[in-house]
Amino acid sequence: MRRFVVATLVAVCPLTAGACLAAPASSSLPEPLRTTAASLRDEAVRGTGAFEIVRSLTIEVGPRPAGSPGDKLAIAWGVRTMRELGLSNVRAEPVTVPHWEPGVAEAAITAPWPQPLVILPLGGSVGTPEAGVEADVVVFPSVQDLEKAAADQVRGKIVFLNKRMERARDGSGYGAAVGGRGRGALVAGKLGAAALLLRSVGTDNNRTPHTGAMRYEEGQPKIPAAALSNPDADLLEAQLASGKPVRVRLKLGSRRLPDEESANVIGEIPGREKPEEIVLLGCHLDSWFPGTGAVDDGAGCAIVLEAARRIGALPQKPRRTIRVVLFANEEFGLSGARAYAEAHAAELPRHVLAGESDFGSGRVWRVSSRVAPEALPFVDEIAALLAPLGVTERGGNDSGGGADLIPMAPARVPMISLGQDGTYYFDWHHTANDTLDKIDPKDLDQNVAAWAAAAYVAAEMPGDFGRAPEGEGGE
Amino acid sequence: MRRFVVATLVAVCPLTAGACLAAPASSSLPEPLRTTAASLRDEAVRGTGAFEIVRSLTIEVGPRPAGSPGDKLAIAWGVRTMRELGLSNVRAEPVTVPHWEPGVAEAAITAPWPQPLVILPLGGSVGTPEAGVEADVVVFPSVQDLEKAAADQVRGKIVFLNKRMERARDGSGYGAAVGGRGRGALVAGKLGAAALLLRSVGTDNNRTPHTGAMRYEEGQPKIPAAALSNPDADLLEAQLASGKPVRVRLKLGSRRLPDEESANVIGEIPGREKPEEIVLLGCHLDSWFPGTGAVDDGAGCAIVLEAARRIGALPQKPRRTIRVVLFANEEFGLSGARAYAEAHAAELPRHVLAGESDFGSGRVWRVSSRVAPEALPFVDEIAALLAPLGVTERGGNDSGGGADLIPMAPARVPMISLGQDGTYYFDWHHTANDTLDKIDPKDLDQNVAAWAAAAYVAAEMPGDFGRAPEGEGGE
Repeated sequence: MRRFVVATLVAVCPLTAGACLAAPASSSLPEPLRTTAASLRDEAVRGTGAFEIVRSLTIEVGPRPAGSPGDKLAIAWGVRTMRELGLSNVRAEPVTVPHWEPGVAEAAITAPWPQPLVILPLGGSVGTPEAGVEADVVVFPSVQDLEKAAADQVRGKIVFLNKRMERARDGSGYGAAVGGRGRGALVAGKLGAAALLLRSVGTDNNRTPHTGAMRYEEGQPKIPAAALSNPDADLLEAQLASGKPVRVRLKLGSRRLPDEESANVIGEIPGREKPEEIVLLGCHLDSWFPGTGAVDDGAGCAIVLEAARRIGALPQKPRRTIRVVLFANEEFGLSGARAYAEAHAAELPRHVLAGESDFGSGRVWRVSSRVAPEALPFVDEIAALLAPLGVTERGGNDSGGGADLIPMAPARVPMISLGQDGTYYFDWHHTANDTLDKIDPKDLDQNVAAWAAAAYVAAEMPGDFGRAPEGEGGE
Repeated sequence: MRRFVVATLVAVCPLTAGACLAAPASSSLPEPLRTTAASLRDEAVRGTGAFEIVRSLTIEVGPRPAGSPGDKLAIAWGVRTMRELGLSNVRAEPVTVPHWEPGVAEAAITAPWPQPLVILPLGGSVGTPEAGVEADVVVFPSVQDLEKAAADQVRGKIVFLNKRMERARDGSGYGAAVGGRGRGALVAGKLGAAALLLRSVGTDNNRTPHTGAMRYEEGQPKIPAAALSNPDADLLEAQLASGKPVRVRLKLGSRRLPDEESANVIGEIPGREKPEEIVLLGCHLDSWFPGTGAVDDGAGCAIVLEAARRIGALPQKPRRTIRVVLFANEEFGLSGARAYAEAHAAELPRHVLAGESDFGSGRVWRVSSRVAPEALPFVDEIAALLAPLGVTERGGNDSGGGADLIPMAPARVPMISLGQDGTYYFDWHHTANDTLDKIDPKDLDQNVAAWAAAAYVAAEMPGDFGRAPEGEGGE
């Protein structure tokens, strides 16, 4: 679907597809559409079933890392829940996922002042030998500093990356800190380190370390890698500040197991006029192991499922199909996203808009996009429609849309991002603390209101968003 | 010391000791004393070394439960630190303490929806058999409700006490919730339960359970007892709310070991005129195992040590002796407090005032006491002196003064309580989260200012506080 047509506009379109230049009028969306979208918005804000959805997922399934028994339970839950919510064409599309298990994780400072440390293995780490690893610690402020280190500073030592993440409403501190998690063990391993300890990529001061994916490279040394909680990183930092040699003992039982079958769970509200055109609402069904995955990403799944359900319950279905995709294995390599983009390659040109809710349950405050520049007035109209929800800011047109949407970027699927308040998100992200009590049902309702209204507009509007600019989006 | 004399007052005293009726004038404390006390207060608020003291204790010692290796390190730390701070007569007075170790602690819901649970053993719990215990769960809202249960409701089951603690500035929610921790296992054991699970006595929603002492009775069944973090208690509660039978598997490696030697660490600022009269400033040196004991009670030790140091650094020492006591094993039976009261029985009548700092590092906001009623005007004067620190409330005259002061009550030692803001104290109390980052150095300074001024007044003032009313105090 390469065309870009706004029915209610005077548009100057050459005959070649994709090159339409349109300037929508200030109120280009038909009034009935706007009324219905506003009504979806206003009714959702008064209360939805979203909290009950995430409650059910976290109580009845709980942790569901890719390939784990919980992953399989989650797929069954997803299929059952979609059917209960009245979605159509519900199915689980097979995805092969890696399977890694964290195992035991123990660490302690053994000198100069012995103390236990609270750690979690990073996702994908190899284990230590059965007896563990014990070595002197060498600290670096960041992975960038480690990259400049000489091998003789690092060889045989446990590298401690001590970068502290900053709190921000838009979560922007994450990008600045997460590099050490992703490639710290690779860099340290190349320099001959014995292991990597990372100050958790998180904004809290709880004794609940933050895990998350890391990667090795074939042909390079694979060293064990674990995250220290922030208080434990403080403790290690303070002992190092004494100037005395600091030693740590580390034991990880982490290991990679054979790949497993998982699935993308998919359900739809079929469009009444153009069922082959798709508005995709995504989230990811997998979670990390230490929490129940309420915030990441049970909340997102509850939001998009409930938004779709409410659109499906309208007296008249929208013109296009709303498709909800609960992606498999976002956390450990985007397996589900890649499988979806591959299996649905032929359909991607007919994806008129895609969005993902994957930033917890904080309230939506910003609308960003990646659509054809000519279609930006439609995004403005959606933003205006969400303003009564407290959505006060208008982001740019360079949004990636969400991790699971990245593999759709080459097909130039237009994206919308409903930016959420992430002030507290990274207190809980990838920790044991990712549990249901962190979610305020009213916040969830506000998200449902925003997604229901935005998705309805995209599914019902006479025109569309064209095709997104090339690239994956940087915002 | 049974007399009650206020030198600057007109007092009507019969010749029998302890029955003096005095009405201090509105400004009965000599001006130089008031000036010096105010100066101690104002200089401490500008910044003290207290944070460095608690930092050193938590970084160089860390967890120090009674009888553990950390306990012995803490005693050496206490002696060394007192000497470094310039205290005199520094010594470690032996105390025999119980030694209990927590061991492994694992739990999981096995039906209807299997999920791991995060637990800590309660202090003193027996372990489970090696294979663990697995049984159906029966829930009670409180230990009071459990007490009314019939044995056939409970027999063979795991009892879940689901009482939630309320947050309050004065920490008053603790008393309402802690009964289940103390006697839940005893009551459940008598009814034939297999084990006890307790919703943590704490106000947070972190996945960091709260331990704390519990007790058995000789001749009664001893069943294993553990605390669930609040999110885990929510999860168990939610599965129970489904109406389906809920089973839990519990494994505890807790065990009692032979008693160990510990010590009360004591140091003094000897009085210049009446060295035999003592103003006692207490805290406890032991901590629970999961955290570094920064808040409970490293903060208190730092506060009273620094307050004493500052009084000791005055150009002229006060008339009476300031004695700092770092009590052994407050947490698991008040061993140090009892040993102190016994070893110093002959001296207790010459203890003119005792106070303990054992409520974290929150700011002082209230002054309470337990002194001879006729001496209350002096407490009022101390309260007035602390008012510029934000100490805005005046408590009653029924204060227990602090757990370690209880064994001094029969000797009617007068007590003062500088009530701290405990709004967040029970987020961290007895958890892995009790770490240095929870302490704001400025709050600690405010506490030092209050204790230094109050202790100086008591040590320097011409009169005294008489003898406390009988009983342990209830406030």
